[in-house]
Amino acid sequence: MPDYRAPVRDQRFIINDVLNVQQHGNLPGFADAPEDIVDAILEEGAKFAENVLHPLNRIGDHEGCQLQPDGEVKVPTGFDDAYRQLTEGGWTALSADPKYGGQGLPHYLNLAFNEMVTSSNMAFGMYPGLTGGAVHALAVGGTDDQKELYLPKMISGEWSGTMNLTEPHCGTDLGMLRTKAVPNGDGSYKISGQKIWISAGEHPMSKNIIHLVLARIEGAPEGVKGISLFVVPKFLPDGNGEPGERNGVRCGGLEEKMGIHGNSTCVMNYDEAKGWLVGDEHKGLRIMFVMMNQARLGVGLQGLALAETAYQYSLAFAKDRIQGRSLTGPKNPDQPADPIIVHPDVRRMLMDQKVFVEAGRAFTLWTALQGDLEHVAEDEETKTKAGDFMALLTPIVKAYLTDKGYDSVSKGLQIHGGSGFTREWGIEQLLRDARITLIYEGTNGIQALDLVGRKLAMNGMRPINSFFAELDAFVAENQSSEMKPFADGVAYSKERLQKATNWLVEKGLENFDNAGAASTDYLHLFGLTCFAWMWGKMAKASLAKIADGSDEPIYATKLVTGRYFLERWLPDADAHLARIESGAETMMTLDAERF
Amino acid sequence: MPDYRAPVRDQRFIINDVLNVQQHGNLPGFADAPEDIVDAILEEGAKFAENVLHPLNRIGDHEGCQLQPDGEVKVPTGFDDAYRQLTEGGWTALSADPKYGGQGLPHYLNLAFNEMVTSSNMAFGMYPGLTGGAVHALAVGGTDDQKELYLPKMISGEWSGTMNLTEPHCGTDLGMLRTKAVPNGDGSYKISGQKIWISAGEHPMSKNIIHLVLARIEGAPEGVKGISLFVVPKFLPDGNGEPGERNGVRCGGLEEKMGIHGNSTCVMNYDEAKGWLVGDEHKGLRIMFVMMNQARLGVGLQGLALAETAYQYSLAFAKDRIQGRSLTGPKNPDQPADPIIVHPDVRRMLMDQKVFVEAGRAFTLWTALQGDLEHVAEDEETKTKAGDFMALLTPIVKAYLTDKGYDSVSKGLQIHGGSGFTREWGIEQLLRDARITLIYEGTNGIQALDLVGRKLAMNGMRPINSFFAELDAFVAENQSSEMKPFADGVAYSKERLQKATNWLVEKGLENFDNAGAASTDYLHLFGLTCFAWMWGKMAKASLAKIADGSDEPIYATKLVTGRYFLERWLPDADAHLARIESGAETMMTLDAERF
Repeated sequence: MPDYRAPVRDQRFIINDVLNVQQHGNLPGFADAPEDIVDAILEEGAKFAENVLHPLNRIGDHEGCQLQPDGEVKVPTGFDDAYRQLTEGGWTALSADPKYGGQGLPHYLNLAFNEMVTSSNMAFGMYPGLTGGAVHALAVGGTDDQKELYLPKMISGEWSGTMNLTEPHCGTDLGMLRTKAVPNGDGSYKISGQKIWISAGEHPMSKNIIHLVLARIEGAPEGVKGISLFVVPKFLPDGNGEPGERNGVRCGGLEEKMGIHGNSTCVMNYDEAKGWLVGDEHKGLRIMFVMMNQARLGVGLQGLALAETAYQYSLAFAKDRIQGRSLTGPKNPDQPADPIIVHPDVRRMLMDQKVFVEAGRAFTLWTALQGDLEHVAEDEETKTKAGDFMALLTPIVKAYLTDKGYDSVSKGLQIHGGSGFTREWGIEQLLRDARITLIYEGTNGIQALDLVGRKLAMNGMRPINSFFAELDAFVAENQSSEMKPFADGVAYSKERLQKATNWLVEKGLENFDNAGAASTDYLHLFGLTCFAWMWGKMAKASLAKIADGSDEPIYATKLVTGRYFLERWLPDADAHLARIESGAETMMTLDAERF
Repeated sequence: MPDYRAPVRDQRFIINDVLNVQQHGNLPGFADAPEDIVDAILEEGAKFAENVLHPLNRIGDHEGCQLQPDGEVKVPTGFDDAYRQLTEGGWTALSADPKYGGQGLPHYLNLAFNEMVTSSNMAFGMYPGLTGGAVHALAVGGTDDQKELYLPKMISGEWSGTMNLTEPHCGTDLGMLRTKAVPNGDGSYKISGQKIWISAGEHPMSKNIIHLVLARIEGAPEGVKGISLFVVPKFLPDGNGEPGERNGVRCGGLEEKMGIHGNSTCVMNYDEAKGWLVGDEHKGLRIMFVMMNQARLGVGLQGLALAETAYQYSLAFAKDRIQGRSLTGPKNPDQPADPIIVHPDVRRMLMDQKVFVEAGRAFTLWTALQGDLEHVAEDEETKTKAGDFMALLTPIVKAYLTDKGYDSVSKGLQIHGGSGFTREWGIEQLLRDARITLIYEGTNGIQALDLVGRKLAMNGMRPINSFFAELDAFVAENQSSEMKPFADGVAYSKERLQKATNWLVEKGLENFDNAGAASTDYLHLFGLTCFAWMWGKMAKASLAKIADGSDEPIYATKLVTGRYFLERWLPDADAHLARIESGAETMMTLDAERF
């Protein structure tokens, strides 16, 4: 397995030069993260990911998790110690609320760290990742008492968390869920039912596991309007807030999966487990969706993170493996063959990988920054716009980055040739791990439906119009001869997205199936447009650095990679538009038995 | 794991209505396969695949193969018995030469059977598949004595075969191979060296294993001009042609792979193993390439076959799994939710799968028929044209069907949602198995290079011009109102392929890197054009049946599926052309250390 090196240089380029986060230096959190602090955090995070987590990635895949006869789950060798280092290093508290022991740093910084964690060991990263989601749900929906009881220990990592939605007969369609909650009369409830695919559901690394569980209170309305959220700790906190009596929730089995073997994916059986309502009765989905939206950004990040590792593996392979001669004459005449990076078709795959990881990184960091601004910006206009962008772009971050991320990992495997199919080189694990990201936290098809069915029309189409205005402004501002190709790329893609949007508004309302039939292509066209914009922003920042006299090669390289994006990625925009405009009719013609 | 049902109805449609194979009923082999015989063979083959092979598919994946301390390899439970049934049923002899015990039936029929074998159990199918390749090499390059000694037993399946090309330091670039052959002075050679990734290299199912091995005779020229082909039996045949003394070739290890666990992928160590030259000294590659071309068609077929199984699994899931409501109102009001096949985005994936498997099946059967005609047609013109098509289209069958086949399996997995990621449903195995098809027998990038670097220019561009003429004729002949959309689709795609071809001829000669940079998109544009043609042919055959008064639903369904192809697949043609015409410059700009 080759090394993983955290892409700190590229992260710094995006944070400092593209996003210029220091312009927000007066805002809460940002004030504590001047450039030298950011650099130090990235450097320390890189060491932890490279030296502690990455060496455990293959072990996690090979050993997997094992359910013990007593219902406890054994995690792979070394995970326990790595988890201890993670929490002792304060990493789980990086962007958490200082009121509960967090460091209160901006979320974009946490995202940069999470990219490294996920690249080096996705299965491990899911343990603290799920806790982060649970913390978020409690912060949004919990009472002050609940927050004081749970948040400090969860933020420090002493306790961990999970989210429990799926049941055997329902995943996407939560309206059908059956897990029951019966009031005990003392404000607590008895929770009974079965949940499946619960990531990090059971493991020995934290002293307690705090399950957030969707259930239906006896007598609640049918469907999604009768679902409540409960907090159900593995050990009931005693009077001192320490883990006490064992609660009636147990891991009933581990899923046999295609990948992420290092994460324990549990069947969780609730047998009159004691739980407490989080938020109002029957309003559980609302909180769960807040948490889910954050989790979706995290899954999009996984798409990027695994593609980065795959890129590093395949780049190392392509420089090292000698096979055949360059089409334009030997490049390595002293050796029996040239390294395969000289072959155009190998470069094509490497350039596609490079385009993806760099734009994906810019896109995720930009989105995380919007998340920060939504909460801490000084003026309402900035807050509103940032919130609109977050809502609009969350399904795109999730689905576009995982669809394209998976393709990117697959290209990395392809560069390895036969070696890619063997376990020895590590890349096939990345492909197996990556495959889940297209599915969980709402399949990518569900993301596309969320985009066309909800996000587009939100607030009288304010978010999409605001997004278009941003692109138009970018195009107008960047008409210099050097920037023109990039501005043209944005305009080209935006024009097609605008047409597709108009088509959707007209035809989607006429027949909802038109919206459904167009949804995935629309999401991809949207993602492509975001990438065009990100490449425009990166080109602009690079040109500014070059104009300032910098000769660091990263800037010239960015311009080449951006040009490759314009030449090789943008042409897909027309194909997406043509598919969208073909509508639902043919797609929906056949009866089920005619397939 | 759902059932697998062999697509006999669709195969019959293609064989009878689209290809009208009975028009060749006077030719050798075809004369023995009138329609009722073809039907009977397909029906019997279907039973064998469905009832014997498919139930072993998951067992093969779970158990895998094990290397025993004595160097023998244990295959999964049931494989031995299935192999016995395969050979006793005469299936391995279906299209083999009657002179050596074969049944001499046309190859298209063997291909139809092989699709079923591969769909039901790819890892199993590779054992007889490799033997078929070895038989072909001996038939092409062997002496009469060699043929008499080996072919009857290999055709009956009593003995099996392998092909040994790859060494640890060379796969694509065979010029570097090091395995040595030293003459014994009696016409035999001592073969020494290590070969890797040898499929079916060692197993107990046949009484002998006949290895075909590339090696370099002592003192031979360097590079590809000094490579010879040898036949190296596991057991040296005795005076009666029965397995005798154990030869010095042993399995040194099994590869740990991502998929096809049921097939033994071996490191083979040759330690002064006795072997005999096949064909002339230093001319081994020529024979190996004959065999390889056949193997490439077989790999393309695997792409189709796994996509078919995935389609069946995901279709069953989509009809059975209820989740959410149709966007246009409940379709299943008595149940708490509708089956997910009502959702447009699920249908999109199913229709994409259906488009692929039906066009892929037509394309592979059409290609196999060209292979038959190349050898048995009565006139030279037909033979030449068929041979040209085979040469031109082999890389496209291999790479397009495996690239798109893999995507298709991945869509099948996606339809399963979270279930797709668990081992229980069988689909994740198909994805893991399918991933190798993009790699072995020459990676898909190598296929693309073979197409643009060799096949295009062959015989003064006779094959490509002949192909274009065929498309033009199809367009001209099909201008009725019902056929016009399909003819237009062929014309549209052909025009772009023609432009791309012209670009390649001009710019590819100017700078070979342009050809390399364009190669994969060119191959995909070519594959898309072949599919447009196949859909045109299938539409034509369906319309003829409908005009004849048939109301079998398959015909109307074909027209809908073909229309879906035109609407949703063809738009990619422009994107491919744009990428091709962007050339190599940007792709080749960066120095290796700038990645």
